[in-house]
Amino acid sequence: MRFLFALISSSVSFGLNSSSRLTLRHLHALSSKSQRSTLTTFFNWQPPMATAEESLRRALAEKQSAVEAQGNAVRALKAAKASKPEIDAAIEALNSLKLEKSSIEKQLQAAVSGNDGDASLSREAFRQAAVNTLERRLFYIPSFKIYRGVAGLYDYGPPGCAVKSNVLAFWRQHFVLEENMLEVDCPCVTPEVVLKASGHVDKFTDLMVKDEKTGTCYRADHLLKDFCNEKLQKDLSISAEKAAELKHVLATLDDLSAEELGAKIKEYGITAPDTKNPLSDPFPFNLMFQTSIGPSGLSPGYMRPETAQGIFVNFKDLYYYNGNKLPFAAAQIGQAFRNEISPRQGLLRVREFTLAEIEHFVDPEDKSHPKYSEVVNLEFLMFTREEQMSGQSAKRTRLGDAVSKGIVNNETLGYFIGRVYLFLTCLGIDKDRLRFRQHLANEMAHYAADCWDAEIECSYGWIECVGIADRSAYDLRAHSEKSGVPLVAAEKFLEPREVEKLVIAPVKKELGLAFKGNQKKVVEALEAMNEKEALEMKAALESKGEVEFYVCTLGKNVPIKKNMVSISKEIKKEHQRVFTPSVIEPSFGIGRIIYCLFEHSFYTRPSKAGDEQLNVFRFPPLVAPIKCTVFPLVQNQQYEDVAKVISKSLTAAGISHKIDITGTSIGKRYARTDELGVPFAITVDSTKDVTIRERDSKLQVRVDVEEAASVVKSVTDGQRTWEDVWANYAHHTSGSADD
Amino acid sequence: MRFLFALISSSVSFGLNSSSRLTLRHLHALSSKSQRSTLTTFFNWQPPMATAEESLRRALAEKQSAVEAQGNAVRALKAAKASKPEIDAAIEALNSLKLEKSSIEKQLQAAVSGNDGDASLSREAFRQAAVNTLERRLFYIPSFKIYRGVAGLYDYGPPGCAVKSNVLAFWRQHFVLEENMLEVDCPCVTPEVVLKASGHVDKFTDLMVKDEKTGTCYRADHLLKDFCNEKLQKDLSISAEKAAELKHVLATLDDLSAEELGAKIKEYGITAPDTKNPLSDPFPFNLMFQTSIGPSGLSPGYMRPETAQGIFVNFKDLYYYNGNKLPFAAAQIGQAFRNEISPRQGLLRVREFTLAEIEHFVDPEDKSHPKYSEVVNLEFLMFTREEQMSGQSAKRTRLGDAVSKGIVNNETLGYFIGRVYLFLTCLGIDKDRLRFRQHLANEMAHYAADCWDAEIECSYGWIECVGIADRSAYDLRAHSEKSGVPLVAAEKFLEPREVEKLVIAPVKKELGLAFKGNQKKVVEALEAMNEKEALEMKAALESKGEVEFYVCTLGKNVPIKKNMVSISKEIKKEHQRVFTPSVIEPSFGIGRIIYCLFEHSFYTRPSKAGDEQLNVFRFPPLVAPIKCTVFPLVQNQQYEDVAKVISKSLTAAGISHKIDITGTSIGKRYARTDELGVPFAITVDSTKDVTIRERDSKLQVRVDVEEAASVVKSVTDGQRTWEDVWANYAHHTSGSADD
Repeated sequence: MRFLFALISSSVSFGLNSSSRLTLRHLHALSSKSQRSTLTTFFNWQPPMATAEESLRRALAEKQSAVEAQGNAVRALKAAKASKPEIDAAIEALNSLKLEKSSIEKQLQAAVSGNDGDASLSREAFRQAAVNTLERRLFYIPSFKIYRGVAGLYDYGPPGCAVKSNVLAFWRQHFVLEENMLEVDCPCVTPEVVLKASGHVDKFTDLMVKDEKTGTCYRADHLLKDFCNEKLQKDLSISAEKAAELKHVLATLDDLSAEELGAKIKEYGITAPDTKNPLSDPFPFNLMFQTSIGPSGLSPGYMRPETAQGIFVNFKDLYYYNGNKLPFAAAQIGQAFRNEISPRQGLLRVREFTLAEIEHFVDPEDKSHPKYSEVVNLEFLMFTREEQMSGQSAKRTRLGDAVSKGIVNNETLGYFIGRVYLFLTCLGIDKDRLRFRQHLANEMAHYAADCWDAEIECSYGWIECVGIADRSAYDLRAHSEKSGVPLVAAEKFLEPREVEKLVIAPVKKELGLAFKGNQKKVVEALEAMNEKEALEMKAALESKGEVEFYVCTLGKNVPIKKNMVSISKEIKKEHQRVFTPSVIEPSFGIGRIIYCLFEHSFYTRPSKAGDEQLNVFRFPPLVAPIKCTVFPLVQNQQYEDVAKVISKSLTAAGISHKIDITGTSIGKRYARTDELGVPFAITVDSTKDVTIRERDSKLQVRVDVEEAASVVKSVTDGQRTWEDVWANYAHHTSGSADD
Repeated sequence: MRFLFALISSSVSFGLNSSSRLTLRHLHALSSKSQRSTLTTFFNWQPPMATAEESLRRALAEKQSAVEAQGNAVRALKAAKASKPEIDAAIEALNSLKLEKSSIEKQLQAAVSGNDGDASLSREAFRQAAVNTLERRLFYIPSFKIYRGVAGLYDYGPPGCAVKSNVLAFWRQHFVLEENMLEVDCPCVTPEVVLKASGHVDKFTDLMVKDEKTGTCYRADHLLKDFCNEKLQKDLSISAEKAAELKHVLATLDDLSAEELGAKIKEYGITAPDTKNPLSDPFPFNLMFQTSIGPSGLSPGYMRPETAQGIFVNFKDLYYYNGNKLPFAAAQIGQAFRNEISPRQGLLRVREFTLAEIEHFVDPEDKSHPKYSEVVNLEFLMFTREEQMSGQSAKRTRLGDAVSKGIVNNETLGYFIGRVYLFLTCLGIDKDRLRFRQHLANEMAHYAADCWDAEIECSYGWIECVGIADRSAYDLRAHSEKSGVPLVAAEKFLEPREVEKLVIAPVKKELGLAFKGNQKKVVEALEAMNEKEALEMKAALESKGEVEFYVCTLGKNVPIKKNMVSISKEIKKEHQRVFTPSVIEPSFGIGRIIYCLFEHSFYTRPSKAGDEQLNVFRFPPLVAPIKCTVFPLVQNQQYEDVAKVISKSLTAAGISHKIDITGTSIGKRYARTDELGVPFAITVDSTKDVTIRERDSKLQVRVDVEEAASVVKSVTDGQRTWEDVWANYAHHTSGSADD
């Protein structure tokens, strides 16, 4: 859904879980012609890094001409029966040109295969190793596997499910509890009227083409993208101009209309990938799962594409619940659905996913935040609009500076950016592979004040995992209009204020006499005048006594006389200011965060014998699926009894753990739990005291049996660190270590 | 879905969240004719309690005849111009008969309006008070209210959402963590093949009728039920026989076929309630929300009606994850969906709900449970099949006795019944309004070994909230068959065992010569013979040399000669026993449990002035939505600062709380939090120490400011009770009490 990555930052975007809104934003952003042309201008701009490849393509083309010319020369010499030394010299020159050409080809090949050919390979290998471990240990499972599965649907198996539930529990603690947010829980089944108001029914679409013979469906932009990438990477003979054109297509892919996409597909002769059959013209496919509520078949419904709408429609009640005070935030965790045309990339683009969304409602005239000072000194990678436009890279920035310079629109938005940073890094996301990227002007809807995405780098590129947007009053207004229920807040004045108000009072009797059946339309048109129009009319009536007035519902001008309308400015006393609150929305794609967390936590280390690589997830205790394992060192009734006693205290302390009394070697048992990211292992090698081993350092301390559970609990709950434990207990160095 | 309540226990059943399976069970239970006739016999039985009403109806009919006869006598006397005293005496007799009739009518009216006219009224009033408070304080909200809502869809507002999340967290602690269950998280969107295998596509239906003119849909059984109830309660003139017939219809309602239902609707002349238009014949409506997966329209899918199938299809992986060992349990919490024809009764029958389900897989030959001894001495209300059949009521029973007498089928089932009892009572469910009701033989599917429902009594009657069923091997077998993937477990023998096995070896060469192209089908039919058939064939071949053999795939007999097949019994060594595990399934309707919990926790008490009733929810701290409120006694900067310090420590301790610095009177602030079920309130009336008030006793202790948060944490976490706190801190008796 995002269109700048290929060009600017070699990011990959998968249209995010919450990109529902992105699609909409996008359409809004493109709704005016002027914006559209800005966009085109922007895309004509060529970033510096394309130059190397471009000059190689030019050099290659020149060398190719030189080779051809020299070939002709050789043939001409042969035809003219020139002397052998002369011909030999020409052939030698030809060969040397061919060598040079081949060398340029190699350089170009390296340049186009992503500038980082080797890095890309090792990323693939890394991902393969991580994904193998994740699937083998049931972190996740393709859903309905015994029935050959369904693309884009995944189950979380036991450890994955535990990680997810830990992430959500921490989310509740970090956001809902900490900020006293109002959490709600709304159904997934949503009636059409709600999603009509939000714009999803009309605009939540992707463009699709069909194989004209088999009916198989493809995403139109994916086919065009694949074609361009393939051409750019594998066909070295295309000219620099052609290459630039293909890159331009890639960059503007998400902005192409159905007609433009269709024209490109025809122009490039793209056919169905599986059959090579011709393709239909692109047409929009709505990405919501549709269903029918009740038995009549007359109430269409959809599985919600985001959880936010459930909050917006409850605004009035929630505002009342909060004592009619702003600001306040509501939050929701729940399933959302997106009927992808052809899901790709595992857990990153799925048809059903868990969203955690916050809608923070504020007075548009005061977007300060009381706890802003708590995040003001945080420093992390920010990638501003400006840096993106000028081809720079993300920079470590102090949040307070970004806000005070006006780069981040307001304090509340800044506060949430800071809180999201803290949230993600506490989970175990590597802060050096986390950046906050600002949306470019043309990525945002016209109503949005500012948007930032928390992007996490993984083997697929930079992945949009959290969107943090100031959506102004758009959503509440849309539902107010559609439902007729005002979704507004009021600021009560301490003292009534005097305000000057324009009063337009049509004189219905005179208008009725003059316009008969059209009276109502004329009245409405008069009342709908803005201040400028009304004052102009007032002046004209006073000077000329009559004006021509265009009534759009009648499609014509009507004459308005002085006695037909009274226009005046009056001073009124107001006791309150009624307004539609702005909403600042941090929206978390939980599945994407978890997948990135898996990658950031995964590493391998050699076994003691050095004959194999062992897999480890370095999950912090907070998210580790199991906090502790308990092993008797050897199979022995006494040790097993001790293990059971410890297990019981762990259960009582609410520490999820696993007891393993199999006869497997201790090293293998450690390796097995390292692979699940279990941070601590208690090994029973005596009935008095036991060892506690930390996963990453493999260090062990000796602790009394009675104390074991409470020590593990204290490190797991974050009351102390492993370093504290290491400093306070006897170190264990002998036999039972895993290597 | 259940059919015995009206007759036996005046329960009300709403077809439970998980009644998905009930519907299926039901259909299975009725699939054989013999079972069906047992059922009819059973329903002819008349419980004793009908007698009073019955004799009143007979007395009324007699009195009516007497009134008519006497009326005729009066008219005859008048016609015969009898003497005035004679006529007056006859009229007096008539009036006295009318008076007697009217008195019987009153008695009958009282008898039919539920035997407990007053109780029923006060139940209604209680529910109204509770529901008003629940809706006003946003425990729940009709979903999409600003768009006039959708029947059967509810949002949990902030306090309801917090209660739900506490209930689920405790469920995880009590079941998943305590039993080391394998929790999984599967999508709601489910492809058709899975629900075809489970039986839902074909059998998860309710019967529906349509208004023939407007097309409005109604549940056929609801219309018939409403008609019978109305007739029984409002029409006193119907005969005792007619009343018995209507009661019989009510009792057998869920067992009527579409044809039988249609016939009754015709017979009674039932029309559409809203328009009085004629109704269509009843036809089945599938209760699953249908959708389409992907863009092609060729992959039908459904929103899952239960979470269990996600576990069954993963059995193979989960068994492997558990080290190929039985028993083990998998669990899942998630949304399930049921497209009700016409939802009624608030949170009890909804179209989308949260289920928490456990599938405990065991060896069918060993259903013992290692922790059974921990629940064996629990005593609670059990309502056995026998007690229900003989018209008795539920009895307080020791769980161990019910298991040892074979009333509860096995230890594991008993263990879970005990654990469910502990779970529900810890949440705050009143143990005197909780019973475990055993399914009657005809309520269960043919494959089920035993089923018990945890039923909770609320203002709607006894509500089925948890089903605990031993479903034997049904589900795993169904998916094995449909998917072709064996979902089995193996018991490895310590020593190989010798077993006698039947070996059928078709001689393909001879069969090929004899049957040419049909050879394959004949071979398959031979191999498919069961032991009895094979041994009969062996005997016949040995005696006659040739037999006629019916091959169903050919639809005809073929002659089989002795040389075409060898049938023998061989002794084989087996190293393991392969079998399909049994599954014991506790399935929790979380929304129903929460609604009953709301009712059980709700009470009112007079305000100090005695001028109004104040609402209180007596939630235990475990489930209370907010654990604590913090108030400055009066508006004052110093007190506010103390309140903020305490609030910060509470946040750090993970205690959800609310700080209220409004100028409202302390009594009103207490009343406001009592209504949310907040168990503790900290009132700041000094900068050194503060008071902590307990909600139900309204008692207060004085605690140092520094200690306040940790005292609240300790009572909230269950480390100590309020009684402990009361015993250990200074009592506060003066001014700041709420009354």
